[in-house]
Amino acid sequence: MSASHTDNIPTHDAHIASHQDDARIFLDASRAHVERRLHQLVPHDSVEPRVIHEAVRYSLFAGGKRFRPALVVAVGTAFNARLETLLDTACAFEMLHTYSLVHDDLPAMDDDDLRRGQPTCHRRFGEAMAILAGDVLQTLAFQTIAGDDRLSSDVRVRLIGELAHAAGTPSGMIAGQARDLAAATHEIKAEELTRIHAAKTGALIRAAARCGALIGNARDAELEAVGTYAARLGLLFQITDDLLDVTSTAAEIGKTPGKDATQQKATYPALYGMKRTRELARAAHDDALRALDTLTYPTALLRAIARLVLERRA
Amino acid sequence: MSASHTDNIPTHDAHIASHQDDARIFLDASRAHVERRLHQLVPHDSVEPRVIHEAVRYSLFAGGKRFRPALVVAVGTAFNARLETLLDTACAFEMLHTYSLVHDDLPAMDDDDLRRGQPTCHRRFGEAMAILAGDVLQTLAFQTIAGDDRLSSDVRVRLIGELAHAAGTPSGMIAGQARDLAAATHEIKAEELTRIHAAKTGALIRAAARCGALIGNARDAELEAVGTYAARLGLLFQITDDLLDVTSTAAEIGKTPGKDATQQKATYPALYGMKRTRELARAAHDDALRALDTLTYPTALLRAIARLVLERRA
Repeated sequence: MSASHTDNIPTHDAHIASHQDDARIFLDASRAHVERRLHQLVPHDSVEPRVIHEAVRYSLFAGGKRFRPALVVAVGTAFNARLETLLDTACAFEMLHTYSLVHDDLPAMDDDDLRRGQPTCHRRFGEAMAILAGDVLQTLAFQTIAGDDRLSSDVRVRLIGELAHAAGTPSGMIAGQARDLAAATHEIKAEELTRIHAAKTGALIRAAARCGALIGNARDAELEAVGTYAARLGLLFQITDDLLDVTSTAAEIGKTPGKDATQQKATYPALYGMKRTRELARAAHDDALRALDTLTYPTALLRAIARLVLERRA
Repeated sequence: MSASHTDNIPTHDAHIASHQDDARIFLDASRAHVERRLHQLVPHDSVEPRVIHEAVRYSLFAGGKRFRPALVVAVGTAFNARLETLLDTACAFEMLHTYSLVHDDLPAMDDDDLRRGQPTCHRRFGEAMAILAGDVLQTLAFQTIAGDDRLSSDVRVRLIGELAHAAGTPSGMIAGQARDLAAATHEIKAEELTRIHAAKTGALIRAAARCGALIGNARDAELEAVGTYAARLGLLFQITDDLLDVTSTAAEIGKTPGKDATQQKATYPALYGMKRTRELARAAHDDALRALDTLTYPTALLRAIARLVLERRA
């Protein structure tokens, strides 16, 4: 209790800037590790039947930020887990995330032509193969964790439970997607929009943080804390996504900008206006940081990541 | 070695008929147990977001044979596992199977209007919701096994690995589906047809048997034996499916008959003619039985199930 309050609260801009540089270096390194491991975990595209492995690799290696895996690694590292015990679980989160993108882009869903600056999976490989590529990416995510013998079976079973809970219903990703589809047919209120995002993107981001902590043998209260941090971070990510859709060009964000407005999708700027949306982003950022205050582990990296998301331009 | 050969080889029709009655009673009982447990494992359709749970339940409770779960239970019981340790894994196989049916029926895939005598999931709930219902059924399958605390974590991790391997690529269900899609565009040979079925339907049936044996603490050689039995049984199931598509009415098989021929799909009757196809069915049946010969466990039920599949009319 005698620790200086400056331990947790950066007091000048230079301090913040240096932590943000560290966070950028961390995110780059994490992305490189994850990409290398993903290449090993996914069947090579010379393996028959080739077309499905081509479609999977096309979607998986299109240059994503690898944000969810980075969160597994960042939180796990904070809890003293070694990188090699975190990497496969980190990759499983990216597989699951990519499956959701491939299926979300389908004509029956969001009907998107561009993803990360390239034709979407179904535009490149046809709709049937895109459905299968998404399907098998989900399978691979669970298979990867189940097969990771660096972790005890007890931990693997808990990780799979966390991932499935976040991916499914009633409060996970699919529930969010189902709510989102329903919302497209009528005007929704701010409360429903937040509920959609919490399920559709927040649950998986929260689970990524929790899984990193689980591998680091976190106690329940610590899982709760990093889970809340990540849930707020997920909301922040979504709000900044909505802001970027309004303010960016296609080259900057790698997909068709202004599409939300064209499709009359509910977004934070549409519901609140730009000024209030920026305030909400700041509040989500501050809430994320506050959730970390109870932890005795080093949290500078996690705080800097939140700041990077708040200030992201792409 | 001194055991009479009549232990394994039924010598007269009355003997076979009585085992087949036992097998029918077993299959009915297994189906009832599985249905009851599925109802508990899947969120009720009063749970929000309702539409996704309605779509899942619509597809899952449309009156399937529950053949894969029955195989988990039949093999597991042969290996002395208790029913309650088998039931959740059995249900996971049905969830995974149902996910595959929902996605296979989609317009971009087989474009089927009828399944088990009812409109397919996408005809009833729309294409987007059918994609999500399939997605979440896959998630639920893995979640169910991960959460089954009647089993040790070591066993759960192995079961999940088996299920994922059978569901994925390069030799599982999705690989088979990808091969099947590719095959639709050109004439295929008998060898390729068998490879498609081995992956598309055989892998999951084989895994169901192996998982039942795993829960019963089977040794590797025993896993191999029941796996081979089930792989042959899966082939038999597919051949009889093809035969029924030619010979049945819609009321009997609950889907549009003759559709294979209309879609110019490769089938055993199309490649071999009816007579030779019936011989292939008999050979698959005999191979399945032979695989059981090395087991010291009681196999009468497994043999009777193979016979029922050989002689099925729906």
